[in-house]
Amino acid sequence: MNMQPFGAEILDSENRLSHFNTHVRRPLSSLRDHFADQTAFSRMLQAGDPIVYEVYEVHRPATAGELPHGLSIVHPGRVGDEYFMTKGHFHTVRGTAEIYYCLKGHGLLLMQNEAGEWVAEELRPRRLVYVAPGWAHRSINVSETEDLVTLFVYPGHAGHDYSSIERRGFLKSIQRDDGTFRVVDSPKWCAVAEK
Amino acid sequence: MNMQPFGAEILDSENRLSHFNTHVRRPLSSLRDHFADQTAFSRMLQAGDPIVYEVYEVHRPATAGELPHGLSIVHPGRVGDEYFMTKGHFHTVRGTAEIYYCLKGHGLLLMQNEAGEWVAEELRPRRLVYVAPGWAHRSINVSETEDLVTLFVYPGHAGHDYSSIERRGFLKSIQRDDGTFRVVDSPKWCAVAEK
Repeated sequence: MNMQPFGAEILDSENRLSHFNTHVRRPLSSLRDHFADQTAFSRMLQAGDPIVYEVYEVHRPATAGELPHGLSIVHPGRVGDEYFMTKGHFHTVRGTAEIYYCLKGHGLLLMQNEAGEWVAEELRPRRLVYVAPGWAHRSINVSETEDLVTLFVYPGHAGHDYSSIERRGFLKSIQRDDGTFRVVDSPKWCAVAEK
Repeated sequence: MNMQPFGAEILDSENRLSHFNTHVRRPLSSLRDHFADQTAFSRMLQAGDPIVYEVYEVHRPATAGELPHGLSIVHPGRVGDEYFMTKGHFHTVRGTAEIYYCLKGHGLLLMQNEAGEWVAEELRPRRLVYVAPGWAHRSINVSETEDLVTLFVYPGHAGHDYSSIERRGFLKSIQRDDGTFRVVDSPKWCAVAEK
């Protein structure tokens, strides 16, 4: 691990982050339990397995003072009426925040805490969203044509907890309705967590 | 302190950060011991006391999981041949990093550690500089006409130590030379710290 300072290009000539250690590509098949419309999901999967989102990350040591960061790219698309989105996660250490800074596109950062409260903040270029400690978060691309590109920064000791949100789902779903996006109750939400 | 998530505009219609808690404006008079050319400094001060840089900050609780952040704006200008710059600082907790993401302008992030090593990374729009833990850092605007605007993020428990760098100075100074910038040895640097 490089312990020297460094500079990196965000959105280099190939539209990625320079200096990245990992590049994760999430195909539709990896998001089976996240979308509401399973018929539309299966139909889409048969026609191919499109990449829903990608993450370029600069890893850092897993200590409180480090700031791992990266680029999240959610491609445009829908499963039925539901917009393409990331899996979403809590941090393992609940008392850790995250910053999302939007570089391109139009989307939402959907957040919810363990008390069952939710907030959706809009992502547009030059908007920053502060995910306060204890809030799970998911990015959703509500554009029909453009990538949603965000720069994210989180504390090195945060850790990722995907399973809590996979068990209970999100309270809300972002759907296309009459040419615009709408926040609706999600049929995937479990008010009581399955053990 | 708001413990809910929130969204903020970076560079709002008034070229500032929305949701900020503090707005610090540093006039030339507050940077007396930082510039090398004291004759030019005094002459400039007599003609007025220009604002050298400004910081809009969103404060957060001083814990490891929080991410205080803000906007740093270094105005264009020089004291003699030395470009306008921030005071520069270490973090009180040395094991804490900081991220600078350039939004506008052209500058350098000058960094040095306690072993006397230094690094200068260029700041241009879409470039991110990672200040590794243990490195003091100062922003310098090398444009003759444009503000240098950066978004910064640091861990909540970092703390600011201005006095170490005030005692010893930086090893290098950024000067205009033949129409461009040059990194030169700083006459302000003390190889041995004064106690």
